[in-house]
Amino acid sequence: MPKEKQVGITVKKENFSEWYAQIIQKADLADYSAVSGCIIFKPDAYAIWEKISQEVDKRLKKMEVKNSYFPLFIPEKLLKKEQKHVEGFSPEVAWVTQAGDSKLDERLAVRPTSETIMYDSYSKWIRSWKDLPLKLNQWNNVVRWEFKHPVPFLRTREFLWNEGHTAFATKKEAEKEIDDIIIMYKEVMEKYLALYGIVGRKTDKEKFAGAEYTVSIEFLMPSGKAIQGPDAHHDGQNFAKAFDISFLDQNEKRQYVWQNTWAITTRMIGVMIAIHGDDKGLILPPKIATTQVVIVPILFKDTKEKVLKKAKEIEKSLKGYNVKIDDREDYSAGWKFNEWEMKGIPVRVEIGPKDVEKKQAVVVRRDTNEKEFVKLKELNKKIGSLLDEIQNELYKKAKKFLQGNIIKANSWKDFEKGIKNKKLVLAPFCGEGECEDLIKDETNGVSSRCIPFEQPKKAGKCVKCGKEGKYLVYFGKAY
Amino acid sequence: MPKEKQVGITVKKENFSEWYAQIIQKADLADYSAVSGCIIFKPDAYAIWEKISQEVDKRLKKMEVKNSYFPLFIPEKLLKKEQKHVEGFSPEVAWVTQAGDSKLDERLAVRPTSETIMYDSYSKWIRSWKDLPLKLNQWNNVVRWEFKHPVPFLRTREFLWNEGHTAFATKKEAEKEIDDIIIMYKEVMEKYLALYGIVGRKTDKEKFAGAEYTVSIEFLMPSGKAIQGPDAHHDGQNFAKAFDISFLDQNEKRQYVWQNTWAITTRMIGVMIAIHGDDKGLILPPKIATTQVVIVPILFKDTKEKVLKKAKEIEKSLKGYNVKIDDREDYSAGWKFNEWEMKGIPVRVEIGPKDVEKKQAVVVRRDTNEKEFVKLKELNKKIGSLLDEIQNELYKKAKKFLQGNIIKANSWKDFEKGIKNKKLVLAPFCGEGECEDLIKDETNGVSSRCIPFEQPKKAGKCVKCGKEGKYLVYFGKAY
Repeated sequence: MPKEKQVGITVKKENFSEWYAQIIQKADLADYSAVSGCIIFKPDAYAIWEKISQEVDKRLKKMEVKNSYFPLFIPEKLLKKEQKHVEGFSPEVAWVTQAGDSKLDERLAVRPTSETIMYDSYSKWIRSWKDLPLKLNQWNNVVRWEFKHPVPFLRTREFLWNEGHTAFATKKEAEKEIDDIIIMYKEVMEKYLALYGIVGRKTDKEKFAGAEYTVSIEFLMPSGKAIQGPDAHHDGQNFAKAFDISFLDQNEKRQYVWQNTWAITTRMIGVMIAIHGDDKGLILPPKIATTQVVIVPILFKDTKEKVLKKAKEIEKSLKGYNVKIDDREDYSAGWKFNEWEMKGIPVRVEIGPKDVEKKQAVVVRRDTNEKEFVKLKELNKKIGSLLDEIQNELYKKAKKFLQGNIIKANSWKDFEKGIKNKKLVLAPFCGEGECEDLIKDETNGVSSRCIPFEQPKKAGKCVKCGKEGKYLVYFGKAY
Repeated sequence: MPKEKQVGITVKKENFSEWYAQIIQKADLADYSAVSGCIIFKPDAYAIWEKISQEVDKRLKKMEVKNSYFPLFIPEKLLKKEQKHVEGFSPEVAWVTQAGDSKLDERLAVRPTSETIMYDSYSKWIRSWKDLPLKLNQWNNVVRWEFKHPVPFLRTREFLWNEGHTAFATKKEAEKEIDDIIIMYKEVMEKYLALYGIVGRKTDKEKFAGAEYTVSIEFLMPSGKAIQGPDAHHDGQNFAKAFDISFLDQNEKRQYVWQNTWAITTRMIGVMIAIHGDDKGLILPPKIATTQVVIVPILFKDTKEKVLKKAKEIEKSLKGYNVKIDDREDYSAGWKFNEWEMKGIPVRVEIGPKDVEKKQAVVVRRDTNEKEFVKLKELNKKIGSLLDEIQNELYKKAKKFLQGNIIKANSWKDFEKGIKNKKLVLAPFCGEGECEDLIKDETNGVSSRCIPFEQPKKAGKCVKCGKEGKYLVYFGKAY
């Protein structure tokens, strides 16, 4: 069936860029738009974002973070208040300069992130220790006008995210929150997206513009490139001083607040697609699949009604799961199998006339392609255990993939070899920005990914400059 | 206690504008921002929007509408494709003209609404009758750079909304959806926000820019001004022709699609505040209140621990409701009463040392201020019935208010008198745009609100020009 072949992905996953470009379109996840670098999130992709944001939001509410909404626009003078911050963001800012026929007196930045507009308010709202902690979050859209090649979900000029911005009376409380937030994000990544990442602190060179330090979760793409996932920044009192966010403490003494910001973005949709997918298309972890089970009745003229009836009975019997029945008559069963495989539905149930007689169905796992005949009376239970198993196996596989692609390098030769072999390289590093620049220059763009929390007593000599290493650091080509 | 008085609203609700401005700030709902005309949605207001959007979203999912996300920016040439549409919106468009240090080749509109960016894609995605209906929705932010005086929630340059954009094979299906959507919105307004509005069709002059007709729900503000709530527009084939959105029907004939768009916005938060609130502050319908019951223990030195313990027992016993206990020790009970009244919490439970002895609590309704002693063992049941009652009473009151402020006018004199008395005026009208302009001019801004669906056989003579009336129309001063 050449037509059916055509709708599938025409390259293997090894050929990652082309594979990714095809899966985005063929699994109906995103489309390019009339605005260069901005994509359309189609329903199946947006549904994944809804799941991620629901799970994160539920956990934030338990942590007593409140949702709010601040303006999309930031007056230029506010954006410029914190020096490092504006240096980091202004090259990528989209500017509104006109409204209707009028030229604006002051340019307005389309928010690349909301620190500067939010902290202008924080400085008015926070007066006393009683006003702390202030823990606000937004679910919104941001724009960063990158000039690199855009890639759906992974690098787009507009993306969706949550941005949490908190203020505390003490550094200790703020730092405790950084830990809690990263644990929370990691849990959602692991339990729902079945993704495994490395948690650590960014080097000073790679930290957020304006932060004292950044903690992030780093992932490894099938192409061997590293990519940053959710992150949390401890800003110390940098913004507090720039925006004069201070309070009277219990001793009536004026103090600056301690602040954090943290985020998860729609990039994670892309990371998930990239890590779990295979040559046939998308593979969705059951816990984020809007459709977990698709029932495909095998329809022949004479037995059609009988089979359809049984398929509907099966649909009803699978309570508690998200089930879809594909009873379209103008597509062959084979075409349907391909389509649902492309869309990554975790489990397919096939039922034909012989199965009806034998009171069974064929159950096919998307992740392993394993087929099994299952008695109808055992189907509900089987589906439940299968969905759990798929969820767990995807996570294990993702973890194994990342861990299997780490090499330890103590020499520059091993470092270069590791990078050439598309590995994450764990190496002793002196911690100097200049040395990090040198590594980047000599390797065509390798950057430090993070400083893992668990460290040996002695790191060893810096892999580049040979000075005493401060710690072991993960390096990789950045996406 | 003069200090406590100060935190309250210093004017009566009759003085509506000032009352509204105060309640927004004092009930901690919104704040002004550094961007003129754009407000900050503070947590208590954003929580109301979360409730509205959850209820609407749930219903949309049942109607098989899918959520998606399209770019914030619209290239100027796309915005200009539908003539009426661009005329309606371009005076209010915020334009991005620069990114980083570069001037853009083409100006980008910050979406005032997404028809033009979405339909560019629809024209690519829709090929065959099998692709229909296409029912997509977005939850997002839009910008309309109004030059009128901004009022939090009611008229802001940026607001949040849902925008549904659907395409059907037939006009009949599209029009059926308009009915379903309006019924859905009306249900959420009535059941959750306890608001009553009038459903009808807008006149041609007042319809959406680009629509064939608009159906809306109109509300009446305490100031006697009318305000448009959720709406649904049947676009006929206007956009389909402008964007070439066509399909091959089952007879292989090419047809243009029939389209609708519909929306509910954060304006409804403001309408709800305005209609239910009183001289003491906000009144929240129980079904949208994040906190439905606040327990205020009356704390004296000797009996503090006993009372606090009982208050916490009560909190636990009130399962199924959203309950908050206010055990702050640095505020007086009176101060707390005022604060929770200002914030509109539906029910307050007071418990003091004597109540503990008598195994009772004082229960106070926010809407009527009625106080009642309730035995603790009956408290849970009582709270349940009270919350239901408050919800129902608020709706009845809102309905009575609107219905009590309608007058029928058959003469111009009665019309003018009705408007002067801040009424919604139901009057026979010829339907001509010029006549409508004349009414507006002579009355300092009275506009038609809607043409109710129920109409008498003969409308009577047009209230303005005396020609044969086409229908009865509601007129009012617009917010």
